[in-house]
Amino acid sequence: MHRTYSMRQSRVPTASQVESPPPPLSTTKTGRWLGKGGIGHAFRKNAAGAFGPDLAKKLSQLVKMEKNAMRSMELVARERMEVAQQLSIWGEACDEDVSDVTDKLGVLIYEIGELEDMFVDRYDQYRVTIKSIRNIEASVQPSRDRKQKITDEIAKLKYKDPNSPRIVVLEQELVRAEAESLVAEAQLSNITREKVKAAFQYQFDALREHCEKVAIVAGYGKHLLDLIDDAPVTPGETRNAYDGYDASKAIIQDCEDALTNWVSSKAVVKSSLSQRSRTLSQRHRSNLSKNREGVDLSGQDQPLAGDRDSWLPADQHPSYEDGDDGVSTIEGEIRGREEEREPIAA
Amino acid sequence: MHRTYSMRQSRVPTASQVESPPPPLSTTKTGRWLGKGGIGHAFRKNAAGAFGPDLAKKLSQLVKMEKNAMRSMELVARERMEVAQQLSIWGEACDEDVSDVTDKLGVLIYEIGELEDMFVDRYDQYRVTIKSIRNIEASVQPSRDRKQKITDEIAKLKYKDPNSPRIVVLEQELVRAEAESLVAEAQLSNITREKVKAAFQYQFDALREHCEKVAIVAGYGKHLLDLIDDAPVTPGETRNAYDGYDASKAIIQDCEDALTNWVSSKAVVKSSLSQRSRTLSQRHRSNLSKNREGVDLSGQDQPLAGDRDSWLPADQHPSYEDGDDGVSTIEGEIRGREEEREPIAA
Repeated sequence: MHRTYSMRQSRVPTASQVESPPPPLSTTKTGRWLGKGGIGHAFRKNAAGAFGPDLAKKLSQLVKMEKNAMRSMELVARERMEVAQQLSIWGEACDEDVSDVTDKLGVLIYEIGELEDMFVDRYDQYRVTIKSIRNIEASVQPSRDRKQKITDEIAKLKYKDPNSPRIVVLEQELVRAEAESLVAEAQLSNITREKVKAAFQYQFDALREHCEKVAIVAGYGKHLLDLIDDAPVTPGETRNAYDGYDASKAIIQDCEDALTNWVSSKAVVKSSLSQRSRTLSQRHRSNLSKNREGVDLSGQDQPLAGDRDSWLPADQHPSYEDGDDGVSTIEGEIRGREEEREPIAA
Repeated sequence: MHRTYSMRQSRVPTASQVESPPPPLSTTKTGRWLGKGGIGHAFRKNAAGAFGPDLAKKLSQLVKMEKNAMRSMELVARERMEVAQQLSIWGEACDEDVSDVTDKLGVLIYEIGELEDMFVDRYDQYRVTIKSIRNIEASVQPSRDRKQKITDEIAKLKYKDPNSPRIVVLEQELVRAEAESLVAEAQLSNITREKVKAAFQYQFDALREHCEKVAIVAGYGKHLLDLIDDAPVTPGETRNAYDGYDASKAIIQDCEDALTNWVSSKAVVKSSLSQRSRTLSQRHRSNLSKNREGVDLSGQDQPLAGDRDSWLPADQHPSYEDGDDGVSTIEGEIRGREEEREPIAA
């Protein structure tokens, strides 16, 4: 048996891995104390979001559901590799040509399993990015709660003891809380957009690479099938000796080379937009930049760095104590946005 | 919410479905009395091949393992659809642009789940074809057993009672059994080759279509991401109103069209062979046809129709009773092949 599994024992990185280094092992691959699938999946999905801040509930659930999906993908990958091995084991007892071709088909299908396994690692990058949105959602919740609490307290005092000196103190506190909340909401908005884009960029890039590679493997699989002599023999007739070992090995090597040299710039599946979509997207983008020029507020405050490192819990934020100049105008805007955003907390 | 899920309620068949009508629902999708995954998988894998003829053991196991793999693929498809819905639910509470784009991303990811589900149905065609090889393997076993039994009986009689008249009868019976076996082995060889080719042709075609389609969806997903306005805002700044609804809808429609119009002849991922592989495969093929001309035995017997319908259990075969002319020469060949094929039964 010309097993070419051995060809892979010590692999050099593929061109695509050089282009973008592979991510760490998926976090879903370790620590599965609830066993694989079944009970664990159902528990994770239902328990997610039952604890923790309201705001982050839906996203917590999404993150857990992604974990389930990834575990299932891992299972498919593992089972595909097992199938590949069994195919090769079965073929061993057949005639020479069937034996060689099934063994090589096994190599290709095993390769698909390995690609699926690598895809899971890259998919985890997507999940981790979504998780970081969940974290900021959770961290914004306390500043919303605080504002609500002060507002309630003022209302209660005004009813019970309208002349209480505490009302003035609380109103000043509310102004500060609103300023803090304003910053937190802007951070939430900025980081959510940035991370959603990055996360799905990861996912779709990984998906495209995975799919194109699997399609390549499938194509070489079809070439291998041509080596089987399927002309029917009559009883007693012996088949010709098989001389395709070199050919099948060369096909596997071609496949290996094609996978190794794949880079995203060579992707061939195109998702081209129709004229209408292009026009509409173009108009949307130009509207965005036009409006941005019209009301340029960028000088008004430091633009946020936008990366997670610059993020601080709202109560450690430097602008926390001196955020109360120009209150009257800002205040109006806060209320406006809060009303617009009402459904979030619901 | 411009939900385009509704676009799909009554779907016209895609171009690729017109080209090759979709297979029936996968047989793995029904009758799962051992629950999903977990225990069922392990049981199926270990129990397979524990009963039934020796010859078909390895392939029985493969068929069961494929069933496990398919169930896991179904699970991935279902979980992906759930993830898509949850993504849309989360996005609903965000700003307009994030809300619209996540909803549309949900539509695309749901579509991937549906493609995966369809792939399972087509993969089942592959599995059913492999299963038909298992069936012929199982049906060839009795004719091998019978020959062995007669041989043993003759040996025993020759030792115990060398002049027994039963020896002559048994020897005639053996000749008939060998002729029957010869036919059965030829049928096994022909059908195995034909079915292996057909099965993997199915699998690789389905895989290629699936992969190219998913890659197309991923590409449109990336177009959608461009609609999110990720320019950071400063605290208190309001974002421009979102005007991308038409653009996002047009992108989804483009994607829908691209998937609907996909046909295998338009596949873009090429698995081209190197010069070396082409030469080797070419040489292999020409050797095959040359040898075939050299020893043309095709006139010696009716060629087998090769389709499953013409297959009869060996003991119902018309040549069963009159297969004993020209025995002496055939007999030599039988022995030769049997020795070659010894490892099969082991």
